[in-house]
Amino acid sequence: MATNHATALGLWERHRDALSQAQAACRTRGYFSLFHETPDRHPGGTDAQAAGLAAFRAQLGTRFELDQPGARDRLGGEVSPYTGEPLGIDYPRANPDVLFDAARAAMRGWAEASPSARLGVCMEIVDRLYAQVFVAQHAVMHTAGQSALMSYAGSGTNALDRGVEALAYAHAAMADVPREATWERRFGSANLVLKKRWRLVPRGVAVCFACATFPTWNAYPAMLASLATGNAVIVKPHPTGILPMALAVRTCREVLAAAGYSPDLATLCCDTVDAPVGKLLVEHPKAAIVDFTGSARFGAWVEENAPPRLCYTETSGVNTVVVESVDSLDPVVKSLATTMSLFSAQMCTSPQNVYVPADGVRCADGTRVSPRDFGAAIAAAMDGIANDPRRAGPILATVQSPTTLAMLDGLSKDGAARGRVLRESRPYAHPDFPKARTRTPLLVAVDAGAQDLYGEERFGPAGFVITTRDRDAALAEAARDALRGGGITAFVYSTDADYLARAEEAYSAAGAQLTCNLTGPMPLNFAAAYSDYHVTGLNPAGNATLTDLAFVASRFRITQVRAPA
Amino acid sequence: MATNHATALGLWERHRDALSQAQAACRTRGYFSLFHETPDRHPGGTDAQAAGLAAFRAQLGTRFELDQPGARDRLGGEVSPYTGEPLGIDYPRANPDVLFDAARAAMRGWAEASPSARLGVCMEIVDRLYAQVFVAQHAVMHTAGQSALMSYAGSGTNALDRGVEALAYAHAAMADVPREATWERRFGSANLVLKKRWRLVPRGVAVCFACATFPTWNAYPAMLASLATGNAVIVKPHPTGILPMALAVRTCREVLAAAGYSPDLATLCCDTVDAPVGKLLVEHPKAAIVDFTGSARFGAWVEENAPPRLCYTETSGVNTVVVESVDSLDPVVKSLATTMSLFSAQMCTSPQNVYVPADGVRCADGTRVSPRDFGAAIAAAMDGIANDPRRAGPILATVQSPTTLAMLDGLSKDGAARGRVLRESRPYAHPDFPKARTRTPLLVAVDAGAQDLYGEERFGPAGFVITTRDRDAALAEAARDALRGGGITAFVYSTDADYLARAEEAYSAAGAQLTCNLTGPMPLNFAAAYSDYHVTGLNPAGNATLTDLAFVASRFRITQVRAPA
Repeated sequence: MATNHATALGLWERHRDALSQAQAACRTRGYFSLFHETPDRHPGGTDAQAAGLAAFRAQLGTRFELDQPGARDRLGGEVSPYTGEPLGIDYPRANPDVLFDAARAAMRGWAEASPSARLGVCMEIVDRLYAQVFVAQHAVMHTAGQSALMSYAGSGTNALDRGVEALAYAHAAMADVPREATWERRFGSANLVLKKRWRLVPRGVAVCFACATFPTWNAYPAMLASLATGNAVIVKPHPTGILPMALAVRTCREVLAAAGYSPDLATLCCDTVDAPVGKLLVEHPKAAIVDFTGSARFGAWVEENAPPRLCYTETSGVNTVVVESVDSLDPVVKSLATTMSLFSAQMCTSPQNVYVPADGVRCADGTRVSPRDFGAAIAAAMDGIANDPRRAGPILATVQSPTTLAMLDGLSKDGAARGRVLRESRPYAHPDFPKARTRTPLLVAVDAGAQDLYGEERFGPAGFVITTRDRDAALAEAARDALRGGGITAFVYSTDADYLARAEEAYSAAGAQLTCNLTGPMPLNFAAAYSDYHVTGLNPAGNATLTDLAFVASRFRITQVRAPA
Repeated sequence: MATNHATALGLWERHRDALSQAQAACRTRGYFSLFHETPDRHPGGTDAQAAGLAAFRAQLGTRFELDQPGARDRLGGEVSPYTGEPLGIDYPRANPDVLFDAARAAMRGWAEASPSARLGVCMEIVDRLYAQVFVAQHAVMHTAGQSALMSYAGSGTNALDRGVEALAYAHAAMADVPREATWERRFGSANLVLKKRWRLVPRGVAVCFACATFPTWNAYPAMLASLATGNAVIVKPHPTGILPMALAVRTCREVLAAAGYSPDLATLCCDTVDAPVGKLLVEHPKAAIVDFTGSARFGAWVEENAPPRLCYTETSGVNTVVVESVDSLDPVVKSLATTMSLFSAQMCTSPQNVYVPADGVRCADGTRVSPRDFGAAIAAAMDGIANDPRRAGPILATVQSPTTLAMLDGLSKDGAARGRVLRESRPYAHPDFPKARTRTPLLVAVDAGAQDLYGEERFGPAGFVITTRDRDAALAEAARDALRGGGITAFVYSTDADYLARAEEAYSAAGAQLTCNLTGPMPLNFAAAYSDYHVTGLNPAGNATLTDLAFVASRFRITQVRAPA
């Protein structure tokens, strides 16, 4: 497909200021967003909300139109965690070989486009995804099971911001390579002048795995980073959550085609739980880049088998909390209970293991709250959320996978045998969706000997209150969990500056991003695009960071031609 | 070892302007050097030259003093390609486990140092290596076998420039991460202000393999990139060329210790051909980064086995030339013959396969030079160098490894059987070193059917003149060699702008850096630090580029702490 890139360069002109602001934000890491973070302020107003809902409803029970090559047959099978009903949508099941060949063919014209042209198209994709965010919102709700607000903000605007952030880094990395130069040097008595030109050459076809519970948040940055640097991307959604990524791929294809490029730069490769294609995609001879978000087990396989392909992963999160001393206990308990309840702890940043020293949490008045009382307080605060119909739904939302229920049952038994169950996980009645798959948090009290129970990620609403010998042991064991099990976030509460400094050292060494003494309305695990680096790559939680230069700088290579001037 | 970093920050003040100039040069990619590229202009004057020679001579036949931990016993065995005599130097054979443990312990204080402090120390290392360049010059001559001038410029100043270039990129990548920020956002009716701080965390212990023929050129950038980003480095020299790297490691250790850091941030791990330790180092559980320069065969093993460690390689170079049309044949022939003779073609950038269309090279006057006549002209020009005692030594230098002689003998027989030997490889009499291991280039004429002979790197003075069906086949086959065999450089001669444009496309796709229509005093394969990107990573010649952001951006990670302001 031939193009003069004029449309793309027009898009660049339209979006360059926004990208430039995003780049500045990445350098200063203060607050920034290109979007309104609450639905009511979306520029489309209530009409856009209504249209999004209508489009989602119209899609239910019908064929998802995606005009891409290589369709073998159709597949589907998504079930809403809110209604328990199948979405009834079917998608093309693609022949991966055809997708790879189409992607390689599509890359020719795309690789020739300037970075500006590609960034213009990618920013337009972001713009369009924001315009259509309400369709995606319902898609995320009814596949991942997130609350309405999280589906809008976390999976919508914040995910798009992370995508723009990746574009800002791609811009910086590509702009670091000049297009041409004159090089002049004396050799003996002669003066040599060479003209040199460089081009950025994409790696090849990227495969982007999206996870079941938070598909867009990692996938948008990966897709956009690959596209901006000239690669094509094949998106492999989780079989239980295809729709959010199918919508994104369709939008990519529309924008690419409208700008004069092959839509096959972005394709969807769906599979089913029974006939997975993930390994085949990772090991495909034409795969050049793999971005993976998903389980620790498959993530480890990807990290082992993807090289020499580029490989960026985010897998599990064994996230820890140490409560050493507090000015006031209530806000800490409230924040922990809320964050551990948020989306039923199905976020890679959800805290799981709460460490308390055996001699208790020191309070400002000199008293100490015993581990038993502390655990009871957390459990009570969780009860407060679970039992309040106005709060339970928005905070807990639903449980994405039925397998989580079995995990909770098993852990409840193990917890009772090895420690004490502080609160049982139970369904709660969602006010809007009576058939929703819901569970309140299971909270188990154990001592540090039960590491086999809490040393790995228990994905879902399961938390531990772990009593350790003393505060030093609490810190050491929490950091060890992060280092061994893969910690993304970490939380410490202490009024002792020296202890906080040691916590900072310990978690930095363990590669978990630390939040100190945070209480109040922000979810403890909120990760802000342009500001919070997500995943360090220093422990098994993943090998890549959203977003640093390393996330983008290898996605293209540099070729050169030089000749006498 | 505790330090207040004052010495290092003083070094930073001393060198920051130089590094800043280097960074500007990386962005503009014009000519730049911090050093004088001919020995006579070295600031140490003739005294430094004499002192260097004296130091080298004093080292011969004696113990190399390197005060590092873990010495098991001593080893040695280097033999000068110039004199045929053993150097008689012995080095510590280290216990790798002890080196890794010492390196990890040494990293504590180094990781705490600011990027500025580390960059100051690294620039001081460069400064000291330049001050002592004449010792290293003789060390390179009498191990790698390079000429005196190449040992000074290519292995000295140009290698140091590539090292500074790597530091410039390390500086840029680290400076991209702010040290702290204030982040402010409304949540509901509350305003939240978070203070955030970031630290750069090194990956761990790097292993840097240096090759036999050009040890410093790739090793300096790798060592300095790892050190600057907070890692420790264990240098694994080729067993036949230990001295250049032993000198470099000793200088690193001296500068590090003088600045208050542990010298164990840089150690030497020597081995012998009979008892190699390379695989053990690559697979060591405490190895985090591997930089490899060396053979294609071991390089492929490293690329396969190093992950999940970071892995940067440069292996073989099947470098190609296409001669399609010329304004004047003589300068082209002269440049090719010289560059194919330079250091007996023991450079990863040396051209090997010269493609000529069957209907000959088109000249400006409309005549055509047949492949036979063209091959004869190259052979004659090679004779001109080989037979001129003033030129042969400085250009051809010596053959580093005796195994190269066997390769030449075998290829001569195969060439005679499969094509024609245009000129035989023979020893020449080096005017200064009568016992030098020397060989003039073997030049073989074949057609494109003999790809099994020329499709892989023939390391040493062996070249092919390959006749192809026509000029399009010449380009296609040359680019295919680069893509399959791993091409670093490529050269095209054509007066047809359209043909040059197609060559640029073909070689860009094949991942070889192209030089067009270059003649004159500069060796065709000269790669200038700060300007020429070396290796693309797009073909089997290696997976990393000297130097781009990707070469440094992953060598450190980012950890974060945030707390309410």
